[in-house]
Amino acid sequence: MSKKLNIGLVGFGCVGSGLYDVLNRSNLIDAKIKRIVVQDPKKERSIDQSYFSFDINDILNDPEINVVVELINDSASAFEIVSQALKKGKDVVTANKKMLAEYQAELIPLAKENKVSLLYEGAVAGSIPIIRNLEEYYNNDSLTSVEGILNGTTNYILTQSNSGIGYEEALKSAQELGFAEADPTLDVDGFDSKYKLVLLLKHAFGITVAPKEILNVGIRGISEKEVAYAGEKGYRIKLLSRAEKIGDQVVSFVAPHCISDQHSAYNVHNEFNAVVVEALFSDKQLFYGKGAGSHPTGSAVLSDVSALKFDYQYEYRKAQSNGGLKYTTDAFIKVYIGSKYVNAIEEVAFYSVEETFQSAAYSFQVGWVKLEVLFDLNLNARKDLSLLVLPDSIQTEKGLSELIEKNLFIYENQN
Amino acid sequence: MSKKLNIGLVGFGCVGSGLYDVLNRSNLIDAKIKRIVVQDPKKERSIDQSYFSFDINDILNDPEINVVVELINDSASAFEIVSQALKKGKDVVTANKKMLAEYQAELIPLAKENKVSLLYEGAVAGSIPIIRNLEEYYNNDSLTSVEGILNGTTNYILTQSNSGIGYEEALKSAQELGFAEADPTLDVDGFDSKYKLVLLLKHAFGITVAPKEILNVGIRGISEKEVAYAGEKGYRIKLLSRAEKIGDQVVSFVAPHCISDQHSAYNVHNEFNAVVVEALFSDKQLFYGKGAGSHPTGSAVLSDVSALKFDYQYEYRKAQSNGGLKYTTDAFIKVYIGSKYVNAIEEVAFYSVEETFQSAAYSFQVGWVKLEVLFDLNLNARKDLSLLVLPDSIQTEKGLSELIEKNLFIYENQN
Repeated sequence: MSKKLNIGLVGFGCVGSGLYDVLNRSNLIDAKIKRIVVQDPKKERSIDQSYFSFDINDILNDPEINVVVELINDSASAFEIVSQALKKGKDVVTANKKMLAEYQAELIPLAKENKVSLLYEGAVAGSIPIIRNLEEYYNNDSLTSVEGILNGTTNYILTQSNSGIGYEEALKSAQELGFAEADPTLDVDGFDSKYKLVLLLKHAFGITVAPKEILNVGIRGISEKEVAYAGEKGYRIKLLSRAEKIGDQVVSFVAPHCISDQHSAYNVHNEFNAVVVEALFSDKQLFYGKGAGSHPTGSAVLSDVSALKFDYQYEYRKAQSNGGLKYTTDAFIKVYIGSKYVNAIEEVAFYSVEETFQSAAYSFQVGWVKLEVLFDLNLNARKDLSLLVLPDSIQTEKGLSELIEKNLFIYENQN
Repeated sequence: MSKKLNIGLVGFGCVGSGLYDVLNRSNLIDAKIKRIVVQDPKKERSIDQSYFSFDINDILNDPEINVVVELINDSASAFEIVSQALKKGKDVVTANKKMLAEYQAELIPLAKENKVSLLYEGAVAGSIPIIRNLEEYYNNDSLTSVEGILNGTTNYILTQSNSGIGYEEALKSAQELGFAEADPTLDVDGFDSKYKLVLLLKHAFGITVAPKEILNVGIRGISEKEVAYAGEKGYRIKLLSRAEKIGDQVVSFVAPHCISDQHSAYNVHNEFNAVVVEALFSDKQLFYGKGAGSHPTGSAVLSDVSALKFDYQYEYRKAQSNGGLKYTTDAFIKVYIGSKYVNAIEEVAFYSVEETFQSAAYSFQVGWVKLEVLFDLNLNARKDLSLLVLPDSIQTEKGLSELIEKNLFIYENQN
């Protein structure tokens, strides 16, 4: 009934060694690691040296190995390895979000042609089984929104910020705790969150979007001013990856958000991740858990490996029949933009303004901005502007006009 | 690739009419309701009368109907209907936890023999896809604990209690809001939570337990005294359905618990449900959402219906290979027992006592009690005793002896 799995493991870092542990301590599964390919022959390893090889062909050309688990950092090399493994008829499990986000259009058809599985639950939100749920359970067209805290590093830093600790200090503490890399760019500028969002877009709405088409604004700009602004209104700041269906279009981006205590992710602190799924009729569901780490991600990888015993494959049903849903950047976002320089704020082309504050030391403006304007601002590279997205923040041009008209009408009635 | 589904719907109450709504407003699914069988010919219906029939044979004997969705209250009649439908080769979707908990040993083999599906995601925690996750994703032996707030009515009442509103008043308000039945026994005495727990035990650990073998203590005994005791220690009171693996045994019960702000369910308020799944390596995951209601449960039923298009069946893999796990009541529980009457507390056979408080008006005792002692106390029927289960509260006799010895050792060292 179930097949024997001989695993070729590529990479033996944090997640790779986590997989080794959880696989060895799990009784039921008929799977074993036959070979581990790593880059550096000189590095000392915590387990029996006889596992290791430094030539990827020792895995790719071994007919006994029927599963390749790819857990390296470099996305271009990973793509090469995964492509070859699929072509050789081997099932692949990976947690490489960057590779998947960049090469999904090549890899998914390749797996299908070769009648093998390509599974990657560990790539999004670590131990939270969100891909599987989107794929299997939310398999009809009723999903309206998927959003999440998908990056533990930034959530840890923001948790510190929300309680008054400065960005630099919080980043340093995250680095000391091992939550943040020496070069934290991928995390703090929202790239990691965006790669994961690309995969959610595929499984939630069946749409394929390249990472560069999606706006990502990170958290470097979050100063005590932004924390104070949010705090005064009872908000907390969270870096959200969002995808929202409006009519037959999907709007999607990564940015720091103000969320209220009515938001399901309000109490998601520190390195934890969460995904909020909203459907037409089932209201909101929250999935919450550890988003990273050796054992949590290793166990997500193990769950994929163990699904291979039953020849589990993603079906991508929504990609075949999503009712013509399309990705769009033609939308308006309600934002706070803050700066030390009034001029810098005045440069930003607001569509409509709802709040303005100016002082010698600091200024901000709240209102609706076209998503494309935010792209052009290139906010990750600017030290003079800070962004927060506000609640109820996405509108089409039509929706926004109606909203403004209604509000004008209210103002007129009040006079 | 996918088959056409002709549904015979049994029952048109809250969930039945919810299913009708969500099915009609979902585009993608190739499924329609052909016939609805209800009991009362005189009751006015909100939809076209031509759907309705009052004879179950109009569904069972219609060869065009290949799916029976059973959504009635009475578990014995439901069992009759579901059995017959399965025998006639029809797939069945149901949300009837009482029927499933009482008759699972008959129904699951019957579905298998007749090569049809019996799905019931809507039976546990409404819109939260917990059965599917236990079945598909947590499919190896690493699960150590599953616990949840599985009943919205009692969670609503306890949310009120935790903020100082008395039980009677909170119950009345729950009834006015439609969260509680006129006869609230099934909810407030923990039976509903227990039926759902029986299904979690099956899918999490592969064990079949009859409802009567599981202790259920409800919330009628929770007075301002218990709320004050919990509040002083920073706890909130939640009715938890718990199943915990200790060695090769599983301990399981339903009771009001004190939980701290470190518990994932601490912020689960009002009518919301949550399930916390703990595995050896992935730490804790929380699933959170609406646990009841017309549309949330209707959409869970719809998700099952839509899975039938791909012939989805539960595999019950853990029931076949759970490594010999067995249900046991041979365990010790750490509890608070309170009463107006010191005598009533003194009657309770504590194995060890950690705290005692006595006053003219109220007394309580905290310590370890054998689970079987709690069974014998028949707490739902007693007005003179209140129970709270404390954190870190389950031990085997061996574990408890070691714990007591260690504590004694600590005391000795302090002297």
